[in-house]
Amino acid sequence: MTAAFGELLLRLHSSDARRFLQSDAYNAYYAGAEANVGVLLSRLGVPVRYITRLPENDLARAGVEQLRAHGIDTGHILYGGDRLGVYFTEQGNGIRPTRVIYDRAGSSYAGLQPGMIDWASCFEGVSHFHWSGIAAAVSQGAADACREALVRADEKGIVISCDFNYRSMLWKYGKHPREVMGDLLPFSRIAVADLDSVNVYCGIDTDREAGFEDRFVQCVQALHSVFPSLQTLAMSFRRHQTYSGALWHKDGYFFAPGYDLPYVTDPIGAGDAFTGGLLYGIMNGLPGLNIIQFATACGALKQSIVGDWAILNLAEIEHFIQSGLSGRVIR
Amino acid sequence: MTAAFGELLLRLHSSDARRFLQSDAYNAYYAGAEANVGVLLSRLGVPVRYITRLPENDLARAGVEQLRAHGIDTGHILYGGDRLGVYFTEQGNGIRPTRVIYDRAGSSYAGLQPGMIDWASCFEGVSHFHWSGIAAAVSQGAADACREALVRADEKGIVISCDFNYRSMLWKYGKHPREVMGDLLPFSRIAVADLDSVNVYCGIDTDREAGFEDRFVQCVQALHSVFPSLQTLAMSFRRHQTYSGALWHKDGYFFAPGYDLPYVTDPIGAGDAFTGGLLYGIMNGLPGLNIIQFATACGALKQSIVGDWAILNLAEIEHFIQSGLSGRVIR
Amino acid sequence: MTAAFGELLLRLHSSDARRFLQSDAYNAYYAGAEANVGVLLSRLGVPVRYITRLPENDLARAGVEQLRAHGIDTGHILYGGDRLGVYFTEQGNGIRPTRVIYDRAGSSYAGLQPGMIDWASCFEGVSHFHWSGIAAAVSQGAADACREALVRADEKGIVISCDFNYRSMLWKYGKHPREVMGDLLPFSRIAVADLDSVNVYCGIDTDREAGFEDRFVQCVQALHSVFPSLQTLAMSFRRHQTYSGALWHKDGYFFAPGYDLPYVTDPIGAGDAFTGGLLYGIMNGLPGLNIIQFATACGALKQSIVGDWAILNLAEIEHFIQSGLSGRVIR
Amino acid sequence: MTAAFGELLLRLHSSDARRFLQSDAYNAYYAGAEANVGVLLSRLGVPVRYITRLPENDLARAGVEQLRAHGIDTGHILYGGDRLGVYFTEQGNGIRPTRVIYDRAGSSYAGLQPGMIDWASCFEGVSHFHWSGIAAAVSQGAADACREALVRADEKGIVISCDFNYRSMLWKYGKHPREVMGDLLPFSRIAVADLDSVNVYCGIDTDREAGFEDRFVQCVQALHSVFPSLQTLAMSFRRHQTYSGALWHKDGYFFAPGYDLPYVTDPIGAGDAFTGGLLYGIMNGLPGLNIIQFATACGALKQSIVGDWAILNLAEIEHFIQSGLSGRVIR
Amino acid sequence: MTAAFGELLLRLHSSDARRFLQSDAYNAYYAGAEANVGVLLSRLGVPVRYITRLPENDLARAGVEQLRAHGIDTGHILYGGDRLGVYFTEQGNGIRPTRVIYDRAGSSYAGLQPGMIDWASCFEGVSHFHWSGIAAAVSQGAADACREALVRADEKGIVISCDFNYRSMLWKYGKHPREVMGDLLPFSRIAVADLDSVNVYCGIDTDREAGFEDRFVQCVQALHSVFPSLQTLAMSFRRHQTYSGALWHKDGYFFAPGYDLPYVTDPIGAGDAFTGGLLYGIMNGLPGLNIIQFATACGALKQSIVGDWAILNLAEIEHFIQSGLSGRVIR
Amino acid sequence: MTAAFGELLLRLHSSDARRFLQSDAYNAYYAGAEANVGVLLSRLGVPVRYITRLPENDLARAGVEQLRAHGIDTGHILYGGDRLGVYFTEQGNGIRPTRVIYDRAGSSYAGLQPGMIDWASCFEGVSHFHWSGIAAAVSQGAADACREALVRADEKGIVISCDFNYRSMLWKYGKHPREVMGDLLPFSRIAVADLDSVNVYCGIDTDREAGFEDRFVQCVQALHSVFPSLQTLAMSFRRHQTYSGALWHKDGYFFAPGYDLPYVTDPIGAGDAFTGGLLYGIMNGLPGLNIIQFATACGALKQSIVGDWAILNLAEIEHFIQSGLSGRVIR
Ligand SMILES: [Ca+2]
Ligand SMILES: [Ca+2]
Ligand SMILES: [Ca+2]
Ligand SMILES: [Ca+2]
Ligand SMILES: [Ca+2]
Ligand SMILES: [Ca+2]
Ligand SMILES: [Ca+2]
Ligand SMILES: [Ca+2]
Ligand SMILES: [Ca+2]
Ligand SMILES: [Ca+2]
Ligand SMILES: [Ca+2]
Ligand SMILES: [Ca+2]
Ligand code: NI
Ligand code: NI
Ligand code: NI
Ligand code: NI
Ligand code: NI
Ligand code: NI
Ligand code: NI
Ligand code: NI
Ligand code: NI
Ligand code: NI
Ligand code: NI
Ligand code: NI
Ligand code: NI
Ligand code: NI
Ligand code: NI
Ligand code: NI
Ligand code: NI
Ligand code: NI
Repeated sequence: MTAAFGELLLRLHSSDARRFLQSDAYNAYYAGAEANVGVLLSRLGVPVRYITRLPENDLARAGVEQLRAHGIDTGHILYGGDRLGVYFTEQGNGIRPTRVIYDRAGSSYAGLQPGMIDWASCFEGVSHFHWSGIAAAVSQGAADACREALVRADEKGIVISCDFNYRSMLWKYGKHPREVMGDLLPFSRIAVADLDSVNVYCGIDTDREAGFEDRFVQCVQALHSVFPSLQTLAMSFRRHQTYSGALWHKDGYFFAPGYDLPYVTDPIGAGDAFTGGLLYGIMNGLPGLNIIQFATACGALKQSIVGDWAILNLAEIEHFIQSGLSGRVIR
Repeated sequence: MTAAFGELLLRLHSSDARRFLQSDAYNAYYAGAEANVGVLLSRLGVPVRYITRLPENDLARAGVEQLRAHGIDTGHILYGGDRLGVYFTEQGNGIRPTRVIYDRAGSSYAGLQPGMIDWASCFEGVSHFHWSGIAAAVSQGAADACREALVRADEKGIVISCDFNYRSMLWKYGKHPREVMGDLLPFSRIAVADLDSVNVYCGIDTDREAGFEDRFVQCVQALHSVFPSLQTLAMSFRRHQTYSGALWHKDGYFFAPGYDLPYVTDPIGAGDAFTGGLLYGIMNGLPGLNIIQFATACGALKQSIVGDWAILNLAEIEHFIQSGLSGRVIR
Repeated sequence: MTAAFGELLLRLHSSDARRFLQSDAYNAYYAGAEANVGVLLSRLGVPVRYITRLPENDLARAGVEQLRAHGIDTGHILYGGDRLGVYFTEQGNGIRPTRVIYDRAGSSYAGLQPGMIDWASCFEGVSHFHWSGIAAAVSQGAADACREALVRADEKGIVISCDFNYRSMLWKYGKHPREVMGDLLPFSRIAVADLDSVNVYCGIDTDREAGFEDRFVQCVQALHSVFPSLQTLAMSFRRHQTYSGALWHKDGYFFAPGYDLPYVTDPIGAGDAFTGGLLYGIMNGLPGLNIIQFATACGALKQSIVGDWAILNLAEIEHFIQSGLSGRVIR
Repeated sequence: MTAAFGELLLRLHSSDARRFLQSDAYNAYYAGAEANVGVLLSRLGVPVRYITRLPENDLARAGVEQLRAHGIDTGHILYGGDRLGVYFTEQGNGIRPTRVIYDRAGSSYAGLQPGMIDWASCFEGVSHFHWSGIAAAVSQGAADACREALVRADEKGIVISCDFNYRSMLWKYGKHPREVMGDLLPFSRIAVADLDSVNVYCGIDTDREAGFEDRFVQCVQALHSVFPSLQTLAMSFRRHQTYSGALWHKDGYFFAPGYDLPYVTDPIGAGDAFTGGLLYGIMNGLPGLNIIQFATACGALKQSIVGDWAILNLAEIEHFIQSGLSGRVIR
Repeated sequence: MTAAFGELLLRLHSSDARRFLQSDAYNAYYAGAEANVGVLLSRLGVPVRYITRLPENDLARAGVEQLRAHGIDTGHILYGGDRLGVYFTEQGNGIRPTRVIYDRAGSSYAGLQPGMIDWASCFEGVSHFHWSGIAAAVSQGAADACREALVRADEKGIVISCDFNYRSMLWKYGKHPREVMGDLLPFSRIAVADLDSVNVYCGIDTDREAGFEDRFVQCVQALHSVFPSLQTLAMSFRRHQTYSGALWHKDGYFFAPGYDLPYVTDPIGAGDAFTGGLLYGIMNGLPGLNIIQFATACGALKQSIVGDWAILNLAEIEHFIQSGLSGRVIR
Repeated sequence: MTAAFGELLLRLHSSDARRFLQSDAYNAYYAGAEANVGVLLSRLGVPVRYITRLPENDLARAGVEQLRAHGIDTGHILYGGDRLGVYFTEQGNGIRPTRVIYDRAGSSYAGLQPGMIDWASCFEGVSHFHWSGIAAAVSQGAADACREALVRADEKGIVISCDFNYRSMLWKYGKHPREVMGDLLPFSRIAVADLDSVNVYCGIDTDREAGFEDRFVQCVQALHSVFPSLQTLAMSFRRHQTYSGALWHKDGYFFAPGYDLPYVTDPIGAGDAFTGGLLYGIMNGLPGLNIIQFATACGALKQSIVGDWAILNLAEIEHFIQSGLSGRVIR
């Protein structure tokens, strides 16, 4: 069983493609970087337990019920605190970017303190633990809870994966991200990152004149020397309409051919779908090239789906890897 | 000019008559007890200035633009702090009640402190000041800002009106409502109340066996002895499907005949529409009976309108006072 | 075949139960008093030809296609002129009335002139002709076209029915309605009226202290002496929530028991459904009591249907006559 | 654990209150008499396993995921066959009835044959088994599977409850319902019925001149003599706007005071909510009067909720029993 | 008059661009390959009669009324049987394909048997008969009815056109498509095909290394030798974003320049619009190049329209042929 | 303060991307070339007064309230006349063009006559006056009012800007556009035009073989010789998916690099956003290249926004100038 830990959010998305200043209704999706990863893993048949802290109200319950619909074990969620974290999104459209207003301060998750969560019980039967930089970004207490989880997971020999996920609009509790993450990242055996996060968290720079593949190699080398326990690193890249992925795994480098995505339904959650696909590939012992193809296909397909979750099955991911984008009718 | 002070809220209302646990979209309305009163007054031709504190984001700006559409002066709003107060509502339907989840902790308004607002500038040209118990219920700082406003208004000879508006789910900052409101209510020359608020704020009990009109008279007498400056008190009552109003004004008692409301579109904001109608009547020097008829008509008509605001004009209120409820077609 | 003549309108109805001042979308229905009657007759199996004048654009074509869907012969519609008549409606809800904004000046129909319509062709195979006061209310040219139609129908021995349908917001072309209608009404063998229209068009007053049934009898007697060719008169009445009907036919008086309608989906078009039911009953030679029961059932059932058209079949009307209102599930 | 067995259906409900002939969109809800009961029981904390046969497509999977969201064990569902049963509903509104078009012939469930379901595994840990007459109404194979389930349940000493649920539009496979149900009903220890079903299945008539309570007593006596194993019988009644319930349990008769329901959001599923409430009361050992009050409250509250499922919690049901209908705002 | 014969379907399309697993509402369109062709022909002024078998319920009636709106003669439709064929579609978006779930087994159309339809009456005044491979794919009875129709049409000298339309998910009644179609296709004077259908029905292979135009020529030659009565063959091709067409007619080959379609609103029905345009061109005696340009324009334009029907007029098709794709505003 | 003068329109836009013939609902936006310019200027901080004539009904009031929301001074609007101008739009999609049906004949604005508007009061505090060719296109009275305004503005030394905006479907009152505009255009110090308008209004032709930049230079030279007071001319161009701009200002020529717009949300109002951006740049004394970059960015960004108004702020326009199109998520 894989345990995922982080904040569950209610996403309120401006309806009918309107700007915030025009919107008179919001579509509601549930989200959260780690929950997003868990949903895809669970849909692909990996048993997943989701751990978080939520208030006792129907907005939170609705989210938990949706996680349950996707097959996730929600029985270890802690209840308490005052509010569910929320984020508002304004739909972009290829000309204008998608915009986000975070409204997660003071959430039940942000109110976490070490000692609140019964990790022994949460980690029963658990072989993998996934978290992301966002889980440590919202409050000192949450960062301390992350540390507590990582120490316990490490003690139990659980494989730890981390998505760096640096969000500049968070990290408002008085510490530099590097100070916090520098302590937490070394527990990871598997990491997903982007060049910006690597710079902020680890102070690693790559050659801006170089191509993406070269920069990835530079990044792997620098990170590996800092975090010797790291065994796998993956990155997805979006450049203009092209979406591609890179993997360092078992000492080899693997690159997925990029997809040209002309029209994106919802870009949010693509990175988490990539991570979900990556973990699926690793857990199933796929060869390196297959892993990165699988992860990149998940990240691309997600962008055709409304909401934060990659509602995908194995057959269609494999079909996509073979056939690529399709405007056809399957009947 | 009338100045209204309180918190502007984003209301997110479950769409398509769904329960929270079923809702996948929320209609967005802007709200707040004092803003609601201001909107009706402004639509009826009374110049209104709205004073509050808001974050600098598009969710808050959208609310300000809507207030401006209704003709309200929004030029004295203070910007700062982190988030807009939100409340979620689940549509009731005459069998089930309408349910509210407040999510206003940590809002920009709740972050108010005395000294932040430039009352001298806010009160330029102002003859009336309206606030409600909710304005003091969300934080100590907000309650202190209320006190500051009341002292300044009183010094300037501004007529002060207060809607008691007790909300048991607020008042979480460690003081009993009576302790806070006991200090603030005596500034009022005009008050709107309900029997429950009067009990909580002032410890006044009325005879539960008596009828509504008798209890209103008892209440007036008890309140008048506590707050000698009080010159006007009004209450609206809902019992089963009947909605009615009572007024003590210029030492006389006036009762509006009740309306039987079979099907309510949106009950929220009815009390604020009643208050808006009351203030309109007083400011225009109507006789007591006309004032309470006008206020009660506003409160009843509001319940036929989606959202928190009483989008009404003078002609239709007067027509309603004369003709009552109507299922007709006006063509 | 029955020919119906009048103006086809696009109705734009505020969406989501909003007031005009709140509405950001309008549901589109096609309408027109005479078209409404024709749709119900056609659905009940009576062959119907609809005659009007429309502009050559897709807004008009969409309406013609919908009439065709209901089985109406639209092959004699005249095309020309500049615009389709429109009316906007604001949904009422039992507290507030439904409001109408007419926007039909300058329409293709209002631009009608005598000689434009080829009545000989329009009246081929026609046994009944139906029109209403609205058809003559929008312009002098339209009133002249009505007169032309009536003279031709009368010459051919066609049975003429008229719904008085007085609308005070129309009649803006400089003539008093009585002047125009006084000339046109005497062609009618069948009439549907209401007390107000009878007063405006014919100067007939009834005793306001009397009950509805007595006033109906008074009205019949006064009208009969003015229009000796009149053989049938029917009226529907709405009082509070009660909807009922009265008929004078073959020298007898018949009254349908009233229906108590608690919640009305759309009141518009109820009168036209009543008229459609009346004509159906007469054309099928039903006894007087059955005719008025049928007409009243149609008028009541219409109010449960969105849009202006009574989408009903014979079986359900007959079931309604026997069983009355129903909140049941038919499965 | 309670096992519920029957057909899962996709309900397609005409949108925007339209008639079938007007509807251009259908809201999708999942349904089925036994699933409806299971959802309420599960929400109230009773462990529930749902057993059915479904096709392997995303329409069926979506329904299974929704059941899982409500906490139901869906791990014993059998997959196979060609299609999901569907039913279309046309929204009624208190004037017109709600209409149903069944489209469930040839469904995966109807294709059931004895031997297909592994009852030994399905009944592991099961103490109660619930089914309804609909489960046997769709095909001979389904009726045979019902018999197989009942025999196995009976052998294991499982408490069997049955909702008579006679639907005249089903039962098209060539047998009279009495022939089939006469064999299956005697297994029941608990039954929910209505006077019509009792007549069709058992040939029992009650005195049509008598009141509901007297007819219930007559019905109990007649049924008890036919099915001696029956220990509990309950009925809900709807007459005009009044909804009430009756119970015979442990040899006593209990009647819940009726509720007057002015405006019903969705009448479908009220009976199943009543049954769910009944089973909850019995399983929790409530006294007879409390059981029938609880069941009747569930049936009434359901009618305020869109879709077939009673999305309710214990606290609000108990509040409703104490306070009755409410148009209030809970804040 | 052109007669079209096949199955009318209700298409239920996932709303708001959602996947099946996310959809809580379905937009309803009426469809069917032959009806789709008929709608476009009728809109272009060709008299069309549509022949099918439908159940007597409002879902079927709604479809018939929509056909009537488009000017189609629906007076020869046969009523009987139990259900309307349905198909569900999941909206694709250029990344993911559009997916279809057929639910047409057991439909009224599939229940057809020879002798049911009165072809003599159906073919009165008919000069052209159109059908497609789907009409024979759903049941042996339907295939037999196709044969019956073709024999009768042939006897009367009616020009027969067939769209091969192979659908691998149908053809479940135990015969290989080649066995059935091999018998039925030789009646055709005009055919629309694709390379896959030609392979399945006729065993004809073309050189997969060759370009589309070459393969079309190979296909014509092979087909012509098998079906000597064939005089016209057309194909449309979609490759990546390019949509193009080819025609063999009066012994000449004609190719339309392809259109590059960046964003497709609804790909379904494009082939039928192509066929409708082809038949229009042939019936109006256009030169070969003009025919294939017209057909290809119809197929391209259809993809900009929601639903299965090509709601187009002559002027805009001709404008499109001249000007191509347009993002302009016509005002 | 900038005064803008023209007609305020209600735009009714077919919902759900439907064609007119399919649409059963219309989204409502307020519009009008000059109002559109005013909204963007006001949002960018330029004080704007909007002058028009409107009927006294809630459809017009709703539009005025929306202008007020954007900060526009609506206090000088004249009320009178019968109807609000309307235009219907059918959403295009890159294959089909967007289509417009104008319905503005007989509007309150078209009923304007010289002398009606109190220009002295309207021009108090005004430094710039903006109008467009549409303002003179709807009636002789409106053209006369334009002339009156221009003379007064000129007398007061107000800077006059004009958007040529030739609409061939208007200009139906019997004069050639050149006759009217030839008189009115010479007042302009700033003009926005397109090659077609320049040809119709001024008879100026440019070399169709030349590129856009060359033709712009030719056009400037020809116009400058005709209107010597002209000091600034700008044009935007759309060619296939490319949108670009050109400016002649202070005797220099400036060209903005074009944007490639793959998917346009709403093309309507792009020209007005370009004009608003141009005026903003001029009023703020930007260098020529910066002005045309700013204007072109506004015109491009508008096409990503539903409705006619460019809901934009300074920061995002500047960001767009630097970074170009974006499919990113800003968080
Ligand atoms: Ca809206
Ligand atoms: Ca999105
Ligand atoms: Ca919905
Ligand atoms: Ca929805
Ligand atoms: Ca509400
Ligand atoms: Ca809406
Ligand atoms: Ca309505
Ligand atoms: Ca319902
Ligand atoms: Ca589609
Ligand atoms: Ca829609
Ligand atoms: Ca619709
Ligand atoms: Ca648009
Ligand atoms: Ni969206
Ligand atoms: Ni959307
Ligand atoms: Ni809106
Ligand atoms: Ni609502
Ligand atoms: Ni609603
Ligand atoms: Ni939903
Ligand atoms: Ni509506
Ligand atoms: Ni809106
Ligand atoms: Ni409506
Ligand atoms: Ni509904
Ligand atoms: Ni529709
Ligand atoms: Ni519904
Ligand atoms: Ni759609
Ligand atoms: Ni769609
Ligand atoms: Ni949904
Ligand atoms: Ni749109
Ligand atoms: Ni839209
Ligand atoms: Ni529609």
